[in-house]
Amino acid sequence: MSLTPLKIIASGIALPRNKVWSSQLDQRLNKQPGYVEKHSGIEYRYHAKDNDSQAILAAEALHNTLSAQHIAPSSIDLLISASAIAVQALPCTAAHILAVSDLPAGIACFDINTSCVSFINALQVAAGLLATEQYQRIAIVSADLASRGIDWQHEESSLIFGDGAACVIVEKGDGNSGILTYRLETYPQGLDLCEIRAGGTRCNPRSGMQPSDFLFHMQPKPLFRLASSLIEDFMQRLLTQAHLTLNQIDTVIPHQASHLSLEHMRRRLGVPTENLIDIYRHHGNQVAASIPTALHHAIISDRFYGKSCSMLIGTAAGLALCAMILVP
Amino acid sequence: MSLTPLKIIASGIALPRNKVWSSQLDQRLNKQPGYVEKHSGIEYRYHAKDNDSQAILAAEALHNTLSAQHIAPSSIDLLISASAIAVQALPCTAAHILAVSDLPAGIACFDINTSCVSFINALQVAAGLLATEQYQRIAIVSADLASRGIDWQHEESSLIFGDGAACVIVEKGDGNSGILTYRLETYPQGLDLCEIRAGGTRCNPRSGMQPSDFLFHMQPKPLFRLASSLIEDFMQRLLTQAHLTLNQIDTVIPHQASHLSLEHMRRRLGVPTENLIDIYRHHGNQVAASIPTALHHAIISDRFYGKSCSMLIGTAAGLALCAMILVP
Repeated sequence: MSLTPLKIIASGIALPRNKVWSSQLDQRLNKQPGYVEKHSGIEYRYHAKDNDSQAILAAEALHNTLSAQHIAPSSIDLLISASAIAVQALPCTAAHILAVSDLPAGIACFDINTSCVSFINALQVAAGLLATEQYQRIAIVSADLASRGIDWQHEESSLIFGDGAACVIVEKGDGNSGILTYRLETYPQGLDLCEIRAGGTRCNPRSGMQPSDFLFHMQPKPLFRLASSLIEDFMQRLLTQAHLTLNQIDTVIPHQASHLSLEHMRRRLGVPTENLIDIYRHHGNQVAASIPTALHHAIISDRFYGKSCSMLIGTAAGLALCAMILVP
Repeated sequence: MSLTPLKIIASGIALPRNKVWSSQLDQRLNKQPGYVEKHSGIEYRYHAKDNDSQAILAAEALHNTLSAQHIAPSSIDLLISASAIAVQALPCTAAHILAVSDLPAGIACFDINTSCVSFINALQVAAGLLATEQYQRIAIVSADLASRGIDWQHEESSLIFGDGAACVIVEKGDGNSGILTYRLETYPQGLDLCEIRAGGTRCNPRSGMQPSDFLFHMQPKPLFRLASSLIEDFMQRLLTQAHLTLNQIDTVIPHQASHLSLEHMRRRLGVPTENLIDIYRHHGNQVAASIPTALHHAIISDRFYGKSCSMLIGTAAGLALCAMILVP
C-alpha cells in the first residue's frame, strides 16, 4: 500500500475567551438546573462575542501553532482556510486571515469548503499540491463561529455548538508519513437537513430573505438517520481500501457532531473508547474546527505521533462523509 | 522544464436567457442613448432573474460540457465548484450543484474559493489531486450571478457585471499536456477595495448588518492602481519561472475584469490583440466565471489546442493575482 506523502509538523488551537457553562444555558433557556448538561453531554463550550472576528481567531490558532514549534511565519508559502462558514461573501476567508496574521503579504491563499469536513479535504488537497512541488510548507486553518448562527428557538442547536479555531502546518516529509487512504462522498438527498440559507445568491435582499435564513436549520432526526444509514458501509469501504481492520487503527479522530454521533462511533461502529478522541464535553460541535481541534488533542495527549495510524472521520452538511487514514 | 500533467478534455458554458443590452441600461440609469456602451465597452451581457438558481446555471454548464464530448456523467469522480460567491453559507455550493446535476450521488465534491481567480486555482488543485491518483476525471464549474449584488446606485459596478457559468473536465492525460508554471499571490492591503460584506460571520443579524452589505463595493481607482502596480512584475516572475518571453505565449486568456484592465493587458503589458481573448463586449465581468468562459471561447475559436501554450491570468478581490501557463 503506497502512501501519499504528508507530514504534520505542528498543530495548535485558539478559543474565544467567553466560556459558556451548561448551567448558564439552563437559565437562558428556562430549564431546570442540570438540564442542558444532561441533554447535551457538554459541561462547557466557548462562544465568541457577537462582534468578535472569525479571522482574528483563525490567526490566533495559526500564531499558536507556529510559535509552539518555532516555525518562521515567512517559511509558509500557502495558507488554506478550511472553514464551513465564511467571513463574508467576497473576498475569500483566507485573505481575511492573511490580513491579520504574521504571514507575509504576497503568499498564496485560498478557501476550501466541504462543510464540517473541510479540514480532512484540505489535508488531501495539500498533499496533492505538495506532490506537484508547487508549495513546500502549507498552513491549514479551520475557524468557525457557530454561535453567530444558533437558533435559540431550536433546542438541539442551542445546546451543542461551540466556537473555535485550529491549525496544522504540513510538509511533504520524507515519504514515511502520509495518507494511506482517503474518501469523500456526498449524498445531496441530505442537502436541506443541515443548512444556513442566507449568505449567497439564494436568499438575499434581491431574491428575498427573512431573519431565520441566517440561522442554522437542522433536522436532527432525519440527519442522524441518513448519516447512520451510510457511515457503516462508508467506513468499511475505507478500511477495505486500506487493507486494514478497525482494531488496527490506533486513534480515531471523529467530527464532534453530537453526543449521539460519538456514542454511535463507540456502540455501532465499535470504536474502543480508549482509541476515540472525544473532546465534546468541553468544546461542543465546533463545525469545521472540530476535527483539527480533536487532532491537536490527539497530538498533545500522545495518541498521534509514535502510533502506526490514525483515522480522521466525519459527516457534514451536504450530506458529506469524509475520512482519511494517516500514518504520522 | 517539467510539466505538471493536466489535460482539459472538454469545456462548455451556460448563460441566463435574459440578455441585457446597454441601451436598456441607458434607460434604467437615466443616461443618454449610447452612454453605457461607450463607458463600459459592453454591447450586451446576461442577467439572471432575481429568483434564478446559481446551482442550476452551473449544472447547465456542466451538462453542456459533458454532452458536447459525449462524456458519461458517471465517469466523473470529483466535482469542484470554483465560484466567487456561494449559493448559501452552508452547505457548500458544489453539493447544491451536484443535487441538480446528472452526476451520481456519492461522488466527491467541494468548493474552492479564490474570488475571481478561483478557476485557475482549481486547475492547480485538480492537477495535484490527479497526481496523487485520488481521482481520474474531475469536473470544475464556475458559476456567478453578479447581478444579484449590483449596487445600482454605483455607476461603475452597474455597467460592467454579467452572469454566467462555465465548466471544464480534466484528466491527468499522457504527460504531454499540463501546467508549465503557476503563481498565486495575495496582497491583503487590497482586502476592502472589492468586497461583499454580508454572507458570513462579519455582517449578519447578530453582529449587525445593513442592506448595502449585500452589494458589491468597489473602489475602482485604488483597485486598478494597486493591481496595475503589481501585475507587471508578477507576470515577469511567471515568465522567468517558465523560461519564456511573452511573445512565446500563443494565447492570453485574462479575467474580463473591465474594459480598462483589458486595455492595460494590450498597452502596458504588450499582449498582441490577436493573442488576447477578449469576450468582454458580449459578456461583461462574469466574476469567477469569466476566465473559464474565455477559455471555452479560446478552445472553440481554435486558439488553444494545437498551440504550444496559453496563459490564464487575472486579478481578484483579496487582492489576489493568479496566472498559469498551460500546454494543451
